[in-house]
Amino acid sequence: MSKHWLQEPEWSWNHPVENQPTFVHHWVQQLKNIKQTPDMILYGAPISRSSISVSGASLYPSEFRRAWKGFATYNLDENVDLTDYLIADAGDVAMHMTDIPLSHQRIQDATTYLAKHYSSTTTCMIGGDHSTTACAVRGLKEAFLNETIGILQLDTHLDVRDPKELGPANGTPIRQLIDGNVVKGENIINIGLHGYFNAKPLIDYANLHNIQMVTLNQARKRGLINILQEALEQLSAKVDRIYVTVDMDVLDISVAPGVPASTPGGMTSVELFDSLLEIGKHPSVQHVDFVCLDPSKDSVVAETVKTGVYAWLQFVTGRVLQLK
Amino acid sequence: MSKHWLQEPEWSWNHPVENQPTFVHHWVQQLKNIKQTPDMILYGAPISRSSISVSGASLYPSEFRRAWKGFATYNLDENVDLTDYLIADAGDVAMHMTDIPLSHQRIQDATTYLAKHYSSTTTCMIGGDHSTTACAVRGLKEAFLNETIGILQLDTHLDVRDPKELGPANGTPIRQLIDGNVVKGENIINIGLHGYFNAKPLIDYANLHNIQMVTLNQARKRGLINILQEALEQLSAKVDRIYVTVDMDVLDISVAPGVPASTPGGMTSVELFDSLLEIGKHPSVQHVDFVCLDPSKDSVVAETVKTGVYAWLQFVTGRVLQLK
Amino acid sequence: MSKHWLQEPEWSWNHPVENQPTFVHHWVQQLKNIKQTPDMILYGAPISRSSISVSGASLYPSEFRRAWKGFATYNLDENVDLTDYLIADAGDVAMHMTDIPLSHQRIQDATTYLAKHYSSTTTCMIGGDHSTTACAVRGLKEAFLNETIGILQLDTHLDVRDPKELGPANGTPIRQLIDGNVVKGENIINIGLHGYFNAKPLIDYANLHNIQMVTLNQARKRGLINILQEALEQLSAKVDRIYVTVDMDVLDISVAPGVPASTPGGMTSVELFDSLLEIGKHPSVQHVDFVCLDPSKDSVVAETVKTGVYAWLQFVTGRVLQLK
Amino acid sequence: MSKHWLQEPEWSWNHPVENQPTFVHHWVQQLKNIKQTPDMILYGAPISRSSISVSGASLYPSEFRRAWKGFATYNLDENVDLTDYLIADAGDVAMHMTDIPLSHQRIQDATTYLAKHYSSTTTCMIGGDHSTTACAVRGLKEAFLNETIGILQLDTHLDVRDPKELGPANGTPIRQLIDGNVVKGENIINIGLHGYFNAKPLIDYANLHNIQMVTLNQARKRGLINILQEALEQLSAKVDRIYVTVDMDVLDISVAPGVPASTPGGMTSVELFDSLLEIGKHPSVQHVDFVCLDPSKDSVVAETVKTGVYAWLQFVTGRVLQLK
Amino acid sequence: MSKHWLQEPEWSWNHPVENQPTFVHHWVQQLKNIKQTPDMILYGAPISRSSISVSGASLYPSEFRRAWKGFATYNLDENVDLTDYLIADAGDVAMHMTDIPLSHQRIQDATTYLAKHYSSTTTCMIGGDHSTTACAVRGLKEAFLNETIGILQLDTHLDVRDPKELGPANGTPIRQLIDGNVVKGENIINIGLHGYFNAKPLIDYANLHNIQMVTLNQARKRGLINILQEALEQLSAKVDRIYVTVDMDVLDISVAPGVPASTPGGMTSVELFDSLLEIGKHPSVQHVDFVCLDPSKDSVVAETVKTGVYAWLQFVTGRVLQLK
Amino acid sequence: MSKHWLQEPEWSWNHPVENQPTFVHHWVQQLKNIKQTPDMILYGAPISRSSISVSGASLYPSEFRRAWKGFATYNLDENVDLTDYLIADAGDVAMHMTDIPLSHQRIQDATTYLAKHYSSTTTCMIGGDHSTTACAVRGLKEAFLNETIGILQLDTHLDVRDPKELGPANGTPIRQLIDGNVVKGENIINIGLHGYFNAKPLIDYANLHNIQMVTLNQARKRGLINILQEALEQLSAKVDRIYVTVDMDVLDISVAPGVPASTPGGMTSVELFDSLLEIGKHPSVQHVDFVCLDPSKDSVVAETVKTGVYAWLQFVTGRVLQLK
Repeated sequence: MSKHWLQEPEWSWNHPVENQPTFVHHWVQQLKNIKQTPDMILYGAPISRSSISVSGASLYPSEFRRAWKGFATYNLDENVDLTDYLIADAGDVAMHMTDIPLSHQRIQDATTYLAKHYSSTTTCMIGGDHSTTACAVRGLKEAFLNETIGILQLDTHLDVRDPKELGPANGTPIRQLIDGNVVKGENIINIGLHGYFNAKPLIDYANLHNIQMVTLNQARKRGLINILQEALEQLSAKVDRIYVTVDMDVLDISVAPGVPASTPGGMTSVELFDSLLEIGKHPSVQHVDFVCLDPSKDSVVAETVKTGVYAWLQFVTGRVLQLK
Repeated sequence: MSKHWLQEPEWSWNHPVENQPTFVHHWVQQLKNIKQTPDMILYGAPISRSSISVSGASLYPSEFRRAWKGFATYNLDENVDLTDYLIADAGDVAMHMTDIPLSHQRIQDATTYLAKHYSSTTTCMIGGDHSTTACAVRGLKEAFLNETIGILQLDTHLDVRDPKELGPANGTPIRQLIDGNVVKGENIINIGLHGYFNAKPLIDYANLHNIQMVTLNQARKRGLINILQEALEQLSAKVDRIYVTVDMDVLDISVAPGVPASTPGGMTSVELFDSLLEIGKHPSVQHVDFVCLDPSKDSVVAETVKTGVYAWLQFVTGRVLQLK
Repeated sequence: MSKHWLQEPEWSWNHPVENQPTFVHHWVQQLKNIKQTPDMILYGAPISRSSISVSGASLYPSEFRRAWKGFATYNLDENVDLTDYLIADAGDVAMHMTDIPLSHQRIQDATTYLAKHYSSTTTCMIGGDHSTTACAVRGLKEAFLNETIGILQLDTHLDVRDPKELGPANGTPIRQLIDGNVVKGENIINIGLHGYFNAKPLIDYANLHNIQMVTLNQARKRGLINILQEALEQLSAKVDRIYVTVDMDVLDISVAPGVPASTPGGMTSVELFDSLLEIGKHPSVQHVDFVCLDPSKDSVVAETVKTGVYAWLQFVTGRVLQLK
Repeated sequence: MSKHWLQEPEWSWNHPVENQPTFVHHWVQQLKNIKQTPDMILYGAPISRSSISVSGASLYPSEFRRAWKGFATYNLDENVDLTDYLIADAGDVAMHMTDIPLSHQRIQDATTYLAKHYSSTTTCMIGGDHSTTACAVRGLKEAFLNETIGILQLDTHLDVRDPKELGPANGTPIRQLIDGNVVKGENIINIGLHGYFNAKPLIDYANLHNIQMVTLNQARKRGLINILQEALEQLSAKVDRIYVTVDMDVLDISVAPGVPASTPGGMTSVELFDSLLEIGKHPSVQHVDFVCLDPSKDSVVAETVKTGVYAWLQFVTGRVLQLK
Repeated sequence: MSKHWLQEPEWSWNHPVENQPTFVHHWVQQLKNIKQTPDMILYGAPISRSSISVSGASLYPSEFRRAWKGFATYNLDENVDLTDYLIADAGDVAMHMTDIPLSHQRIQDATTYLAKHYSSTTTCMIGGDHSTTACAVRGLKEAFLNETIGILQLDTHLDVRDPKELGPANGTPIRQLIDGNVVKGENIINIGLHGYFNAKPLIDYANLHNIQMVTLNQARKRGLINILQEALEQLSAKVDRIYVTVDMDVLDISVAPGVPASTPGGMTSVELFDSLLEIGKHPSVQHVDFVCLDPSKDSVVAETVKTGVYAWLQFVTGRVLQLK
Repeated sequence: MSKHWLQEPEWSWNHPVENQPTFVHHWVQQLKNIKQTPDMILYGAPISRSSISVSGASLYPSEFRRAWKGFATYNLDENVDLTDYLIADAGDVAMHMTDIPLSHQRIQDATTYLAKHYSSTTTCMIGGDHSTTACAVRGLKEAFLNETIGILQLDTHLDVRDPKELGPANGTPIRQLIDGNVVKGENIINIGLHGYFNAKPLIDYANLHNIQMVTLNQARKRGLINILQEALEQLSAKVDRIYVTVDMDVLDISVAPGVPASTPGGMTSVELFDSLLEIGKHPSVQHVDFVCLDPSKDSVVAETVKTGVYAWLQFVTGRVLQLK
């Protein structure tokens, strides 16, 4: 195995020779097969044994690619053809079967490798559980040592539980990054918190470290898009690059049964789609991940997986609009 | 079998002799049993083997009638008693087991028959997949040769794939009608398009033929009811009769798991209900269909079937209000 | 068994000795274990064989308590720590296996007992089907003979079917109370009615008895919170205490598959959560129940049960805010 | 309503005029429509609010009739054409919505009525939960006062819980009949008991009253058909008529997910089918019931309902063979 | 598209370069990639719009290949290593979206092509519904004009419904072949019939044409393996080549929820596995198909698909044993 | 936390004061509450993040205890009252959230602790995935250093994958024990292997180390009980104590959907129940575990969990019979 730990997925779509890529599965190409610098690199981080609750989020990268077939490469709402935007699939980081720290290190190394070799390319990591975000951000820090990183987090949870107690579990990534001096709390903005899903000591920690928290209620009252624009402006004024992490549990449980920690009262899918379009448009955003989606909990219609692909395409559409 | 191909459903509700029809299953009557001209005729077109993806929409007419029992004949929001409105159930068009063109011809013939014999009656076809709409509209054209027909389509898709390639599949009805000179593209308005569910060549076709496309985003920004009113006014100024086709895949996948092609980001059920009330109120609308609902994909609570019945009753309520 | 019929649940959470109660299952205490007067008393009324349709709502009190583990004792939207508010769990009313009138009498007796012994404490009954509401209100009337009781009902249905015909079924509680002179129709406000789910004769009954009906459509147009504030103000001007009954079938079927009578077009969970926060804030509200939630109809993610706990916590948050 | 409480089902199959009845739904006729004395009378007892655990067995009579469509009127294993055997459907006993004793009395009265008017006809009651068996047997006792009734029970449970404690619940019918001097314990044979599903005091009661218990293990070792033949011979030597009650929970949970009390280790469907063929052949058997099947717990393929129809048809095939 | 209509599947497993093929997905190779004559050729016939009831059997070829990953290339019961047996995957026959006769013709043509070019190779067709069997056998007849073909059919149904009435539906293949003089009724043996799933006129047709019918009951009494050996011996004495068709609805509904027409009382999976091992061993058997398995009806554990792969591997093991 | 790592479960059944323990949940007692030496000690090892495939087997100990309520303390087949047999529940081993080696060490330590303090008591570990077996056996070896341990394994798999490659995953426990010189291969007997679920290199390893393999086919031909008796006799002649490990994936997928690795062709539940009765009777068996049951994959009827409890009770019944 190569030292960057990225390996080909177990299966691939067979591309027709002559057709125009009118659907996503014929449009995205394997990184090894392209010669230009891609606009975006996708890579999977298929681990979920680091999840606190039982999770099959490790299955998402494969199901994410399978669901591409149902999506065209044209955004009708924005009248944007995506096919000129070059997306390369770098495959999945090779996970160890039981050694969680080793697997996490590989995600970090793979991210550093991609960031160094494709420094102007947008990266998109497909989790896996939320522990992968800490690895990816550490990997970027290693690649861009002198840069300040800010995080925009869409999440129902703060994810600042104590890694000293839990180890590098999916409830801890933000605290790992703060306690590890990788990202400052004041450079983190969490949008989507609501309800009764963060214990008091976690809120105290967040306040202590000046994490900015915008609850979903507040965002709805002031306009979710406004809030996002302000957040991105504020971060881009302070940091060198913005990492966006989308914990799919920010979605309401009725639209995201396939996310173990989704709750009632969360975002609608339309709110998430609008958010990602806006985020994709912002030039300071260079990295995104989508985590915690467990395809095995979906019903036979694969509703959450489809929502995950749609959300990602909204980000891509934003990127295309930003380039214009 | 009679030459209009309409046959009694396999089962019927047993009507109590003395009771007032306070519920739908006691209110709708068999066409053969009534003597006055009905206000509305229902008929089923139970075919879905013409569907591109696997679909049990052929089962919907029967399940639609079964679900009536859960609905009262009174609209509480509008304070309207529906029972004076006379609805006749003409049964289902007899489908051949494997001969798709023959089955389609029968739907066309049955529609012509009903249109000629009950020319002032609103018709409501319960699909079946969306291929049935092409049959019904051709049948109406045959009945009203000198009239111009306009179509208002609520749909996530354009349904203008090429019948030369696919045959008369459920992705093709609108193109069948345009290419067959039955309806002009400029007399078709599609409301509900969104996301990544129409390939570029289809959008090109729609533009070439001047199909009016209002995306769901646009409709929400400008007000869905406003958009509908404008669309109906515009059509009624140009055409002699308006055919409304409701592809239930216009609904969001979270409220319509029982529609094979429903997607995230679609209409809410309340948006659909409001739309059908508005549509029902318009005097130029004389024909409606509801297609692509596959009851076998519903969970045990039959959520999509109930939504389908509710949507139809909103149209009926609109009709009653229009008569007043 | 004691004469108030309240008995310990079949199982209990084991409380850690030293920890702060940062989660609900460690916060709520058994009534028998506390010495102060609690702020709220919870009790279960686990009966659903009085339900017209098949219902497992009798299973809800146990599942309600099981789901506590997923909820923190801090409301992030309002920045309110709930742990100072003292909630006592009085257990469940002992139900007879087949004698419905006897079971109903016990619910009434248990309610009277609690109301007399904890007259300043908010009571919260967890049903059970909606027949339990009639018992609880009769029990309160017995405890507060000289007081006038008003009812705020969140419900898709009027629940005024005739007990002479059906017996004390879950479709009849409001009519039981009116016909039994326990509550006057003019002191009942129903918010959440919509669609085709109340037969004409029931609406006639409601009008005859001056039940105030606000449909969901009307509430949305005028603002649901405004409507609630007006309703509570109006009731508090007329009655001595307000009983709030939340039939969970007021929720849309897409967010409440675990309620046998939920329908398309109902409340969103956010609307319900906002409502219960508002209701909890009002000082005249002293009693609440949550009924008709059947956990056995939920999918494996227990979406409706989680929604039920969240709704209850919103009411609790309202209570805490009202105390401040 | 007539005093025998039997009423037409809510819906009926529409019979084709000319066809031979090659399928069950065209073969069984409404009792009111036939003039000869039928060979068998079917009637439904749609109650399950008397069930200890939550049960939708009240829905079975309707679903049983719906599933007929999938079954031909020819038994291929025995090469027997069933169509000469005349089966009349007497409809369902009208149940009260909440008055369990009244509903039970009506089942008893309906059974008496049928037994008196069609004394030579085999009766087949479709439950409902197992409480209905006590009603039916009491009804037969009333019709045939001077006769001794024996019971062959296929069941995982003894169903001798104490009605003094539970009322007439579905765990009590056999004890109701013994304590009420309707059937003697020594004239009851239970086949199918196994595992850990009968508490010690119930086994003590059964032994005290000389109920014969043959566990499934014993039956398998000695041959289930042998055991059945011996049981029927023994009973027919002692009693005037044999009532067979089939609690569908005798089936293994893997083949009967739609029976709330089915367990691992129960009968296979083939064992049940062989048993009912054998039982049907015996001339002393004149009454049978099938109880405790809850269609709402089946998956979308309706496996338990289909098994229930098949089991009933095996009994019918036995009857036809017995007549030859 | 080539004139034999075989095309690469939409996706492929990525084969590791160095590893031994210890699992099926690394063992089976694409036909285009191998140079020797394969021992077996697989091809998919993904059509199910010719099915009488709604069926997604068209999805099976793809899911069949996906499930390979869970199966090793070693049969532990027989201690047989399968890896020396060369299996080539020829891909799927290209289906038209709505033209059923054209699709059927292509299956026939593809079969003829394979039979002519690989005349000594065992062919294995993966359906699709049972209509595909008629196509395949006609294709073989065209390739081997002077040979007599016999059919061994494992099926709950005779599949001799009248194509004049239904067209070439999945209930008709055997009759198509008899009426079309492709196979004589006396050269067809059906094993697995049972219950009430074949109407009288079909049994009359089978008897008229001397189809040999062995019910599952008879087979169990005389030994299923004995029956199979006799059947294969009898056929091999009369015909030049034996075609085996396995309608997966021969399985019991409890082990095959993913087959639309499976019934209670059918084969256990072990009976099917033993049968296919025996069949595979017989040298006169040169063609097999597996039809009517609808993966979309499986639960999340994919039980029927796994059973389908296992059954196929048993046939392969038989082949390997026969070669030794 | 104590150094043996055993902690009280999160919840407990509330025991009635006066009743006889006629059901399991009132019979099993907390270890801390009893003074005599118990006959059996239960303890949970709730870990499944060491599972190769996604598994929720960590949830089983809690669900196992919840399902007790449905089981009586009397075995009807053997007429054995279990209540004199004293079972103590020692709670669950405290698992770390992400540190798999630490969690495994704690299971080992807890087992050593129990074995040393209750050396004559039968221990029963409830997994968790199969990696826990290696921990438990190592723990016993530590407690009984001079004793030879033999293993009887009921399993579809050999579980001898290489821990050097996978770490201590659930596919490796037997190899961990052999390579670690804890148990000799010749003292291990695996019963239940079948099909295509063990790759060739694993079979080679097993043969090299003289693991005795009895396939399910062989066991059925020679009599499963005979095979078990021979195996136990053979082991008891060679070793000092026998550890029995029951990987629930030995069951057929149709009866065990709640085991991630269950397959078609596996044991029936009756075969498993008979086996555990026989195993329980043998005096040399002193330790048993039940692993790999994932309750979250069960349907709403909890079929696999019920099967797991039943299997455990069969072992207990065997113990009671052995004592007599």
